[in-house]
Amino acid sequence: MARTNLPFTQHEYDVRLAKTRSAMQSNGIDVLIVSDPSNMHWLTGYDGWSFYVHQAVVISLNDPPFWFGRGQDAEGAKRTVYMRDDCIIGYPDHYVQATDCHPMEQLADLLAGKGWSSKVIGVEADNYYYSAKADQVLRHALSNARFLDATSLVNWQRAVKSEQELTYMRRAGAIVSAMHRRIAETIEPGMRKNELVAEIYDVACRGADGFGGDYPAIVPLLPSGADAAAPHLTWDDQPLANNSCTFFEIAGCYRRYHCPLSRSVHLGRPPQHIIDAEQAIQEGMAAGLEAAKAGNRACDIAGAFFTILERYGIIKDNRTGYSIGLAYPPDWGERTISLRRSDETVLEANMTFHFMTGLWMAGRPEGDWGLEITESIIIGETDAACLADVPRNLIVKD
Amino acid sequence: MARTNLPFTQHEYDVRLAKTRSAMQSNGIDVLIVSDPSNMHWLTGYDGWSFYVHQAVVISLNDPPFWFGRGQDAEGAKRTVYMRDDCIIGYPDHYVQATDCHPMEQLADLLAGKGWSSKVIGVEADNYYYSAKADQVLRHALSNARFLDATSLVNWQRAVKSEQELTYMRRAGAIVSAMHRRIAETIEPGMRKNELVAEIYDVACRGADGFGGDYPAIVPLLPSGADAAAPHLTWDDQPLANNSCTFFEIAGCYRRYHCPLSRSVHLGRPPQHIIDAEQAIQEGMAAGLEAAKAGNRACDIAGAFFTILERYGIIKDNRTGYSIGLAYPPDWGERTISLRRSDETVLEANMTFHFMTGLWMAGRPEGDWGLEITESIIIGETDAACLADVPRNLIVKD
Repeated sequence: MARTNLPFTQHEYDVRLAKTRSAMQSNGIDVLIVSDPSNMHWLTGYDGWSFYVHQAVVISLNDPPFWFGRGQDAEGAKRTVYMRDDCIIGYPDHYVQATDCHPMEQLADLLAGKGWSSKVIGVEADNYYYSAKADQVLRHALSNARFLDATSLVNWQRAVKSEQELTYMRRAGAIVSAMHRRIAETIEPGMRKNELVAEIYDVACRGADGFGGDYPAIVPLLPSGADAAAPHLTWDDQPLANNSCTFFEIAGCYRRYHCPLSRSVHLGRPPQHIIDAEQAIQEGMAAGLEAAKAGNRACDIAGAFFTILERYGIIKDNRTGYSIGLAYPPDWGERTISLRRSDETVLEANMTFHFMTGLWMAGRPEGDWGLEITESIIIGETDAACLADVPRNLIVKD
Repeated sequence: MARTNLPFTQHEYDVRLAKTRSAMQSNGIDVLIVSDPSNMHWLTGYDGWSFYVHQAVVISLNDPPFWFGRGQDAEGAKRTVYMRDDCIIGYPDHYVQATDCHPMEQLADLLAGKGWSSKVIGVEADNYYYSAKADQVLRHALSNARFLDATSLVNWQRAVKSEQELTYMRRAGAIVSAMHRRIAETIEPGMRKNELVAEIYDVACRGADGFGGDYPAIVPLLPSGADAAAPHLTWDDQPLANNSCTFFEIAGCYRRYHCPLSRSVHLGRPPQHIIDAEQAIQEGMAAGLEAAKAGNRACDIAGAFFTILERYGIIKDNRTGYSIGLAYPPDWGERTISLRRSDETVLEANMTFHFMTGLWMAGRPEGDWGLEITESIIIGETDAACLADVPRNLIVKD
């Protein structure tokens, strides 16, 4: 099977594998079971919507990595991973969503067959989609192995992006920029929200600059008015009301790489508290972006932003961003670095973040409301670059 | 907070809770931690894209259910669940994707505070998104409790659909029918695949018969030619080749209820093996649908279908369908009943299935290929009804 369409060079996959093995060795791990689809893709190129069944990429210190999954998905693996076909191992279909047997029994047999029954095995205990049951079955079947929690071990290797990854993320940035332009062009009072979502998906799929869009790991989030105090509502088929504010938390995606970006649209003249919040966010973002450079820490960005907000009397009691890149549902975050005051991770050049400066305000004297104006950024040696290009202001359609 | 937009009556939620409690009692479970977003929604109405962080609905035998999740998502819960605000409990944001603390510590404290430390606690050990780590933290913090595996306990209560659920699924059926009509109208050689996906999403979101579409739990799957031997590939931005067959595995979705349906399109004149496979599928489906009635078993549908296929020399070594209904990513299946020869579940009226008759054929003398022509069905007392209305044939554009 020819692998003609891998998104990265073999050299890049080799570097990723070496970094992962080095982290395994530092943690005393002989064998790493990688269940998170974003980590599986990053390590091997595997791509397909098969993460609703148990599957994994298994990394050892010396043997080539192998893909393990449902038999029918082995055909997808053959078409997307860089490894040879003999490193692609499918399990029989009667293991799928069955009550009398479990795919991890098959994986345990495989590991035992390789002589790894007494090894130190790392598992992604808190990554998607490694279930409690999968863990129990593996531990029971490999009772002589020692299991270590390797949650996010691979995710951490992904924090600093390569040039090719940044190229894909800039394409995603161009896509999300076009998505926001379409929103600004088409939104109007009385338009049903699902119809606006159709416009958003139209651009998300058609893409930008000749590059077609891939599916973002999160669907559009676009609550209006008082509902915008809730950050994760999706949509319904009701008409948009005049004199209401809607935020649009969306991402462009190119070959699984994401650029999330939020903007907000006020239909009708915005009230003073929205105008004030816009100004607080803009000023806070400028301060945060000033701090977003190599050598500073994640908390420096967060602290700079929160300090300005507090001057405006706004308390944001949640993190203000997270590492981004390659992702599959349910999250476009990388689940490593968070922009919060307690995260002292030192920033390095070519780390990428969604500077998620959204406000979700409930129980305020002026009522419930929300406002999102965000940027996705690349950390540089002396400053940060934005991945997208959308004016950083509240859009008002009056 | 007014709950004016619940998808079901309070009576229906009461019935669901009673069924769940009855199943808990049969299994000796005092407290059930429900992590699967589809089960959370079915039990309480909770809706939002927040399942990328730890959350749950907790059911006990006597106290009212409560929602547990990220603090900022409590606002989403207040807007979507039927319970009172004092049954909505948020945890602080520094627990999110942190390495030094875990949300399940908070949930354990909550359960302990209710005097449930020594109870029998059911957990959805193999449902989405209950991680191995979540399980470890809970067990460690509640070391006097007894934990039981309650995987799919709630899912099984969902198998027989109410009239309101069927109404929603029929609307989803109308949406997916319109999606397939759009594909047939717009597909042509040279069209880039991502642009065809834009057409699919356009209908999926705009909906049908005045009912706006919700996001399906799986994105469109549409591999072409030899790649159609792999069932779960998504899309790229390359042009569709003439003289190739593409299957479209898609679903309409209305208020989280799904109607999956697949059709295949051949650009150019189809080769004999595709024509033969179409006939085998059609004849097999007719036999399977004949067996799809209350009193028969899941395996009767599968056996009827497989027997016809085998007469045509086709071995399908994977299940040929599954229970469907309410769903969140990553799966639109209900993960209970599978249409396979080993599943002897007795069919009841108003059970709903995706009769997933897809063929993914690799390593055949004629090459690799795939063909999907499927139906989503409602089991009746004497026969089955189709949820969608799309001619059951290969679409040829020559």
